[in-house]
Amino acid sequence: MLFFTQCFGAVLDLIHLRFQHYKAKRVFSAAGQLVCVVNPTHSLKYAPTRCAAVQASTEQGILPPCHHHEAVHDPQLVPCTCPLFSCPWEGHLEVVVSHLRQTHRINILQGAEIVFLATDMHLPAPTDWIIMHSCLGHQFLLVLRKQEKYEGHPQFFATMMLIGTPTQADNFTYRLELNRNQRRLKWEATPRSVLECVDSVISDGDCLVLNTSLAQLFSDNGSLAIGIAITTSKVHNSEAEM
Amino acid sequence: MLFFTQCFGAVLDLIHLRFQHYKAKRVFSAAGQLVCVVNPTHSLKYAPTRCAAVQASTEQGILPPCHHHEAVHDPQLVPCTCPLFSCPWEGHLEVVVSHLRQTHRINILQGAEIVFLATDMHLPAPTDWIIMHSCLGHQFLLVLRKQEKYEGHPQFFATMMLIGTPTQADNFTYRLELNRNQRRLKWEATPRSVLECVDSVISDGDCLVLNTSLAQLFSDNGSLAIGIAITTSKVHNSEAEM
Repeated sequence: MLFFTQCFGAVLDLIHLRFQHYKAKRVFSAAGQLVCVVNPTHSLKYAPTRCAAVQASTEQGILPPCHHHEAVHDPQLVPCTCPLFSCPWEGHLEVVVSHLRQTHRINILQGAEIVFLATDMHLPAPTDWIIMHSCLGHQFLLVLRKQEKYEGHPQFFATMMLIGTPTQADNFTYRLELNRNQRRLKWEATPRSVLECVDSVISDGDCLVLNTSLAQLFSDNGSLAIGIAITTSKVHNSEAEM
Repeated sequence: MLFFTQCFGAVLDLIHLRFQHYKAKRVFSAAGQLVCVVNPTHSLKYAPTRCAAVQASTEQGILPPCHHHEAVHDPQLVPCTCPLFSCPWEGHLEVVVSHLRQTHRINILQGAEIVFLATDMHLPAPTDWIIMHSCLGHQFLLVLRKQEKYEGHPQFFATMMLIGTPTQADNFTYRLELNRNQRRLKWEATPRSVLECVDSVISDGDCLVLNTSLAQLFSDNGSLAIGIAITTSKVHNSEAEM
């Protein structure tokens, strides 16, 4: 009996996902973009102790990569960069992607421009929506996080990190775009390296930040569609381009 | 002696303004845009009682223009739309601009694309930076407000209102753009009519919202440059444009 109930639940979930996918496709079909439905994960490593040392150093004007405060014997090894779990894994930067896919079940998508459709935006903070994005010969980690920086006032933070070194990250520009109800919000920046720790990027507020009211204006039936594009940055000092 | 001290102060202020103007011109000169230095005004009508009735009505799903709850005998008269002062003035919509210029000393600028350079961003909330913008045969009111929606956490809110009716406002799209330090943030929306009350637009969060940390990233020496552009909106349903 329990088995049949579970099967029925699974079928309902599949129908729900399929419906959301079609809905997103309808909205973005004009641009012919790939739509990826991303389900939320309740963050299990909130109040991050891993990055406490990084934040303390940032306040003193030094920014070491996340692994400096861990007992890493081989300097070429990096810790697990998964924003969801405290994980003891460490390995070479080249194998971080396969670790994230296999151990933490983070999906990877191909394509220069994709649409990230985050479902169930109403879930309480802390909640994360995460995918990897393979583009221009590199892999990027897209993190959307619902977090209460100020108690009782959850906000949404979205950023893109290169699974690579900070020097490699400097060669790219990422764009996040929200578009609904005759409103459009675009954020463009150089991605940070995953070695710099997503928690510190979000606590610095150096990313796309949305209040709950703005997130609701851009949401459709509890789902938020974010258009993502990555380009190689030719001009580093773009101040005068505006 | 006092006279000479005041003269000296005025000359220093002029030099300071000139310096800020040149600095902004240097940044935006490539685009040949008009730069307008806007000084802050400490808001004298905070905790707005004028718009309490509007907000209560909005919660009930009705949105009357601001003047409905005031004793307006001629329905063609509108109250003063100045976001800074509680002012008993009322008059026809056509003379609101001259009232704002003459009584409240709000500057007016011409041009399709201008740069609004808000100075002294560090001043405590509540503070407003305001100009009028004349473009495409209409006048718009640009309001940048520093406000503490959550105690101890000031945020910046920027919006553009048409000095005209909601039906006229639907024909335009405004864009606010921040661009500095290899980061770019763009907000595009249909302007609201000044009859809808700037306080309720800001309390709904339906505008460009910046946390203090993001405002600092986009500021240069305490001044925030916002590029402004207004266009006529040809397509009303732009959902599929993304």
